[in-house]
Amino acid sequence: MDLLLFDHTRHSPSLASLSRSMAARDLKILDFCIPVNPYFPTAEMFSRFREGLVQALRFYPSSNKAIANELSSVLQLAPETVVVGNGSTELITFLNLTMVRESLAIAVPTFSRWTDEPESLGRAVHLFATPPDDGFKLDAREFVRFVRRTGARAAVICNPNNPTGALLPPAELLSMLEQLGDLDLVVVDESFIDFADESTVPSIAADAVTLHNVVILKSLGKNFGLHGLRLGCAIANEKLAGRLQSALPHWNVNGMAEMLVFELASHLDQYETGRKRVVRDRIALAAALGQIESLEVFPSKANFVYVRLTAEIDGVEVRNRLLVDHGCLVRQCGNKVGSSSQFLRIAARPGEDVVVLLAALRCVIAQLQ
Amino acid sequence: MDLLLFDHTRHSPSLASLSRSMAARDLKILDFCIPVNPYFPTAEMFSRFREGLVQALRFYPSSNKAIANELSSVLQLAPETVVVGNGSTELITFLNLTMVRESLAIAVPTFSRWTDEPESLGRAVHLFATPPDDGFKLDAREFVRFVRRTGARAAVICNPNNPTGALLPPAELLSMLEQLGDLDLVVVDESFIDFADESTVPSIAADAVTLHNVVILKSLGKNFGLHGLRLGCAIANEKLAGRLQSALPHWNVNGMAEMLVFELASHLDQYETGRKRVVRDRIALAAALGQIESLEVFPSKANFVYVRLTAEIDGVEVRNRLLVDHGCLVRQCGNKVGSSSQFLRIAARPGEDVVVLLAALRCVIAQLQ
Repeated sequence: MDLLLFDHTRHSPSLASLSRSMAARDLKILDFCIPVNPYFPTAEMFSRFREGLVQALRFYPSSNKAIANELSSVLQLAPETVVVGNGSTELITFLNLTMVRESLAIAVPTFSRWTDEPESLGRAVHLFATPPDDGFKLDAREFVRFVRRTGARAAVICNPNNPTGALLPPAELLSMLEQLGDLDLVVVDESFIDFADESTVPSIAADAVTLHNVVILKSLGKNFGLHGLRLGCAIANEKLAGRLQSALPHWNVNGMAEMLVFELASHLDQYETGRKRVVRDRIALAAALGQIESLEVFPSKANFVYVRLTAEIDGVEVRNRLLVDHGCLVRQCGNKVGSSSQFLRIAARPGEDVVVLLAALRCVIAQLQ
Repeated sequence: MDLLLFDHTRHSPSLASLSRSMAARDLKILDFCIPVNPYFPTAEMFSRFREGLVQALRFYPSSNKAIANELSSVLQLAPETVVVGNGSTELITFLNLTMVRESLAIAVPTFSRWTDEPESLGRAVHLFATPPDDGFKLDAREFVRFVRRTGARAAVICNPNNPTGALLPPAELLSMLEQLGDLDLVVVDESFIDFADESTVPSIAADAVTLHNVVILKSLGKNFGLHGLRLGCAIANEKLAGRLQSALPHWNVNGMAEMLVFELASHLDQYETGRKRVVRDRIALAAALGQIESLEVFPSKANFVYVRLTAEIDGVEVRNRLLVDHGCLVRQCGNKVGSSSQFLRIAARPGEDVVVLLAALRCVIAQLQ
């Protein structure tokens, strides 16, 4: 396997790239790196996708606007407040390009597209460190003070945060947004919020459309178990949503993604069931990881768990041995600002996979201690 | 059927939207609107796509760079000169956003993204009219003079042009590019060039990588019969390609598109056979349309034919009746700058479909004369 692939990207090499680099292609990799919802789409939906594949790929998809209209009815939001894009990363790129004009404040560690990209575009990026001691919880009051001190004109809150899993409760978040009402833009990246809690999803999307400077981001690929689909959406008041929509390409959501959106309304029950299973998987994963002595497990409200290896264990080596010797791919967070190679992000997966991972982790840690 | 759908877009409503709007969903629409290569991918490739679907959609695709590397080897170009994007329209948007800084010269009628989008971004767009009399052929000398006169800092040549099908031969084009060497950027949009000629493809991609200010665009969805896939590429010298690549999202090409790219190398023969059939279909279509008295047929080197209805026949009515009464969808070009509703663009399709269209056209024209 070509481990150098890890050095060529700010994120992680794709499973497809890693597999193509393997001499023995029969090793099945268990992917704990990318948090995927394994319970959706249903097998029945996948067969419908197979049936519709030729139609969906041969012809132009509908315009993003038409797809957003359908999605808005699934989300029970006004059509003018929903914008779709080719994955949430595309929406991030366009927000960075067209609406983050001068400067940005963001808590770290976080998703690197929110730190690297604005910087490469010449915006001033002000990093607000969250400490491990308090489970990386964002201190809203301190963050607002930080924004004032730095003079940042935009802010991004990843909620729950990636990779830490820390969640700011809706009431605290809304009060903070009120205080940040004078900024050009505040993005709340809710890519992982569907997996915060079994009983309620603490999204503020419905409130945000009444705020004048707030954009909510959702990664539909992540929610619906289809990362390869490239589908994300932004939710904002009509004026902001309109600005974003007119900046974006108008019909770049692919035909398979369109098919998914038009299948959603009739499969919401199955999605809800799967969503809850993912939450239970994450709770179980955190409990299981808590049994390993050399690991510190941070509280997570997302579909992954952030952990820290004790200082004497080399995180890169752990990642490599887990992959090469045990076929378990985890995210080593050494290339994230505000993190280090001692931190791993481990995606929630069904119990049987966690058994494999746990045995592998114990084995690798024992070798390296 | 909801014909108002045509009024809501600068382009055309998708087949999916039109079908969803139909009361009787069993009317099969023959799509002469969007030029699709009907001979590729092969049935065998489609079954491989079906088999690989879960894998391709569940997990993140590889980075655009990894996909571009594979594509460059298929195109026999250096990897550093090829950039992939989520459809050629995304590449157009990024070229307009990041490299067309002040002003643009372009011959019309042409693809509306090259006229409307730069204008909406506040660039000065200088339109160079090509006349029907000479089959809309671009007069290279006159165009260079026009660029000088207007002071445009960028130029776009669609070759063959959409919707006219007019082609500037490679030698003339290269000589013109040499004269335009002082511009910030010259884009040659070769989206339809694979269907110019049976024996040789008059692409200048291999030459363009030696020019300092030229970007070639290709629409792979169009070539490979998969518009719903969203896959395009740009070809340029290493420096320009690098600039474009770093502006674009880094991994927004979807998993199905990645699968196609990695299937191409082993299916080039089938592609070549299909490509030639499309060229023959276009020649046959032009000849067939030439039999209808009220139609003027312009010479085309693309996989569509541009025609003009005589002045007394209403083009919108022709489009609507062809669709509603006969299930034939054609592109009425009234909303294209430099065109009018008297002009239709008709995509090449297999002979049996052309028989249906010809009967439908004769019938509709007889009703309206």
